[in-house]
Amino acid sequence: MKVIKVNTHQREEFIDITQEVESAVRESKIKEGVCFVFSPHTTAGITINENADPSVKKDILNHLKKLVPFSGDYSHSEGNADAHIKASLLGNSVTVLVEGGNLVLGTWQGIYFCEFDGPRRRKLYVYFLPTFR
Amino acid sequence: MKVIKVNTHQREEFIDITQEVESAVRESKIKEGVCFVFSPHTTAGITINENADPSVKKDILNHLKKLVPFSGDYSHSEGNADAHIKASLLGNSVTVLVEGGNLVLGTWQGIYFCEFDGPRRRKLYVYFLPTFR
Amino acid sequence: MKVIKVNTHQREEFIDITQEVESAVRESKIKEGVCFVFSPHTTAGITINENADPSVKKDILNHLKKLVPFSGDYSHSEGNADAHIKASLLGNSVTVLVEGGNLVLGTWQGIYFCEFDGPRRRKLYVYFLPTFR
Repeated sequence: MKVIKVNTHQREEFIDITQEVESAVRESKIKEGVCFVFSPHTTAGITINENADPSVKKDILNHLKKLVPFSGDYSHSEGNADAHIKASLLGNSVTVLVEGGNLVLGTWQGIYFCEFDGPRRRKLYVYFLPTFR
Repeated sequence: MKVIKVNTHQREEFIDITQEVESAVRESKIKEGVCFVFSPHTTAGITINENADPSVKKDILNHLKKLVPFSGDYSHSEGNADAHIKASLLGNSVTVLVEGGNLVLGTWQGIYFCEFDGPRRRKLYVYFLPTFR
Repeated sequence: MKVIKVNTHQREEFIDITQEVESAVRESKIKEGVCFVFSPHTTAGITINENADPSVKKDILNHLKKLVPFSGDYSHSEGNADAHIKASLLGNSVTVLVEGGNLVLGTWQGIYFCEFDGPRRRKLYVYFLPTFR
């Protein structure tokens, strides 16, 4: 299991971790198999979406804010109920195939760590199940 | 494949199944690898979120009710269209790493079975792909 | 890795790909293990939900349109910001167990490719990690 460290700088922020996951693939020397990226946090998610135009991540973040406002009729007393809800909407892990020693992503796809309750020091777990080394 | 049985008691309810999944890991004798938890139902989901403060699961359930009301302009005639929609928003499976014979979860993370059309007798499938036994 | 090709005919459309994934399982000759279905596109998702009554997929599509309208206060200039947001809400991959050479799906479950920015020619990747061949 490899650990990727991510420092976030705002309350809500999408951070492209594609390069870090690619590096973990290369270090693992796995040629073919499946890569799992898992967040052990409950107020952050992981998603795969467009990494060409940065306005896409902005639109996702902003629209999630509309769907799940910061202030609402929430019970949780820590003031981050919205972040927990957003984390469950996106999910806390992604699965990506590996072929020829590289992640198999679409042309426009990047892997994003989705912070909803920062700024924080976060970590992600990357694990591989190889078919061939 | 191990089967976890869950009886739900209300129409909508989050049930913490972390202990049941942990027990399945121990029975499997897997030391390292990946654990998959899959729901074969279409009106229920699975999510990983905070299990310390029970208000978090309450907030997620209540907010999903606001986003996807029970009554709406739905075509499905069984009266549970909202439950199907919520199931797709959360997803019907989760993936968790296993290390040292234990699930690798964050300090505050629990695995929840998310009933949206209960009360029902439900079952979940747990499967492991081991790297080392 | 097997490739499933899907042609979509409307802007938004759910296409049942269960048979195509089942065929891929049979061709792979895998008896037991895990099947991963991954979309390399950023304006489409994959979900598992009811395939008996076609009104369910219609309700999910229509409700997602309400939650994430086509026109909104979006930055992305390509006119498909809503499709990117919906893709992240559903996720771009699903994981299904395989037993006895078949997908382990619930009675009412089907696997849907969820087009949000068609019509397009799309492809999906299917990959297996076998426990036994």
